[in-house]
Amino acid sequence: MYYLGIDIGGTNLSVGIVDDNYNIIGRGSRRAHAPRPIEEFCDDIAAAAFDAIADAKLSLSDIESCGIGCPGVINSCTGIVEYSNNLQYSDIPLTDIISKKLSGLKTYIDNDANAAALGEVLAGAARGAGSALVITIGTGIGGGIIIDNKIYSGCNGVAGEVGHSLLIKDGILCTCGRRGCFEAYASAVALKRQTAQAMRDNQDSLMWTLVDSPERVSGRTAFDAMRMGDTAGKAVVEQYIDYLADGITNIINILQPEIVCLGGGISKEGNTLLSPLDKLISERRFCRGNVRQPKLVCAKLANDAGIIGAAFLPKSVNS
Amino acid sequence: MYYLGIDIGGTNLSVGIVDDNYNIIGRGSRRAHAPRPIEEFCDDIAAAAFDAIADAKLSLSDIESCGIGCPGVINSCTGIVEYSNNLQYSDIPLTDIISKKLSGLKTYIDNDANAAALGEVLAGAARGAGSALVITIGTGIGGGIIIDNKIYSGCNGVAGEVGHSLLIKDGILCTCGRRGCFEAYASAVALKRQTAQAMRDNQDSLMWTLVDSPERVSGRTAFDAMRMGDTAGKAVVEQYIDYLADGITNIINILQPEIVCLGGGISKEGNTLLSPLDKLISERRFCRGNVRQPKLVCAKLANDAGIIGAAFLPKSVNS
Repeated sequence: MYYLGIDIGGTNLSVGIVDDNYNIIGRGSRRAHAPRPIEEFCDDIAAAAFDAIADAKLSLSDIESCGIGCPGVINSCTGIVEYSNNLQYSDIPLTDIISKKLSGLKTYIDNDANAAALGEVLAGAARGAGSALVITIGTGIGGGIIIDNKIYSGCNGVAGEVGHSLLIKDGILCTCGRRGCFEAYASAVALKRQTAQAMRDNQDSLMWTLVDSPERVSGRTAFDAMRMGDTAGKAVVEQYIDYLADGITNIINILQPEIVCLGGGISKEGNTLLSPLDKLISERRFCRGNVRQPKLVCAKLANDAGIIGAAFLPKSVNS
Repeated sequence: MYYLGIDIGGTNLSVGIVDDNYNIIGRGSRRAHAPRPIEEFCDDIAAAAFDAIADAKLSLSDIESCGIGCPGVINSCTGIVEYSNNLQYSDIPLTDIISKKLSGLKTYIDNDANAAALGEVLAGAARGAGSALVITIGTGIGGGIIIDNKIYSGCNGVAGEVGHSLLIKDGILCTCGRRGCFEAYASAVALKRQTAQAMRDNQDSLMWTLVDSPERVSGRTAFDAMRMGDTAGKAVVEQYIDYLADGITNIINILQPEIVCLGGGISKEGNTLLSPLDKLISERRFCRGNVRQPKLVCAKLANDAGIIGAAFLPKSVNS
């Protein structure tokens, strides 16, 4: 059977046709151009969906169901996008609109971070885990919680906001308005801020050979400098991993998932990130000794996680 | 039908016979006297169980099953107490031992905080909630997570350690060895430490009329002084509730349970605690506006939560 998965992002609308083995066998996409009128937006989603169906050499009648991963506060029961900051929509019956444009195809929806987490559990780095926490580190820190192969989204659809637990009460101002959140210290934006500051403080750092100005650092700059033997770069990486370890330990102590899966650009660092992180978590977690520590892995599917997870939302709902 | 519930505490072994309506219709108890040889310990549990059965005017054959709530790291699948710091036991097949002493009665086990959480969800302040977090504030801060009316204990049986997420990185040393945990700022022990310090710093405080020395404060001292109009007592309460609000907000942002239920001695303060706490959480939680806020309540069943939850562990496992 074939399933349609739609990943709505702030920049792109990505659609895939996914088979029973979680392979994406056809693709379509459009630019999001949000914010814009919802009908126009949905017309483009539908067009990308038909592109994907054609790319898979199928017709709409071959498709079993449709799933949508959408940023914001999503009511997966009613199919309504209650509020999406990125898209500037509120109270949109998105599954109804999309279903109509796809000749009544049964359509499901959930938050995009949740869909991506489901994708990694079904087909990616957390494959086979009964429970998993997928943490995506980007502009912010997002999370998706999977329990018994189903998305856990709490009483109101917004569970898993793991970026907004404290590291330092009354610390750095977070985008959420609170001070001292994990996200304010360990997002990619925070890493770049820390890297830029270290450049300013260390005029002899090798980071100056990688970028010509602190304004141009990326999430890789400090890691690359460390690999070149740079002390300042190494200090940035160590401090950053220290923050990450604290934030992840906090969540492990509460949830103890089988697997913690890290996504986002930073996860490309692989073992450079995972080894020291795993060691620090083992020192800091509440139950040590013989009590099994959740396995730490880096995400594998990148953007495809969102498409595959969205396509299999019906499975998460019905199982 | 009738179910036997055993709540193993550091001080007492409490047993109850519970009916289908969650009423405790017979009781028995012994002192724990831990640590001591496990056979002796279990003989006393069995004796208390037979007392409870007799108190309910029943015989063993009237009892459907037995459930045990036990402190420590419990493997609820194998029935083994892997490690209990309070009782100083490790690798004890407790369900097997107890079952034999009760003529082969089918016996279940889980962590005591989880059993108490289940009790509050089935019959107490969180009754009817599909998902709930029960936070018990005592010497430490313990937690029990209920999802879909079942105990959630993670991949290793130790989920719900909500006292061990950070409030202040590198802050006050916690009993777990880490610095800055929620528990180090918001347990009853922490409240007493804060109260004692405020007495030392404020020789004119009305707290001195309530207790004659900072060593003798209780968790109620600052609250009682506040009610008498004492400024120093009020400041202690406000700071304490501020810490509690931060710790609870952290967990809400991750779990978003339908109900957060506060237990332990401090929960007797009722609305004096709940009203300001609820207000601070609404200001600090990640999703504000129309997104439903988990309901905050105080536990109702006190120690009976552990007995009722233990008795209904089979229901949590099988449903």
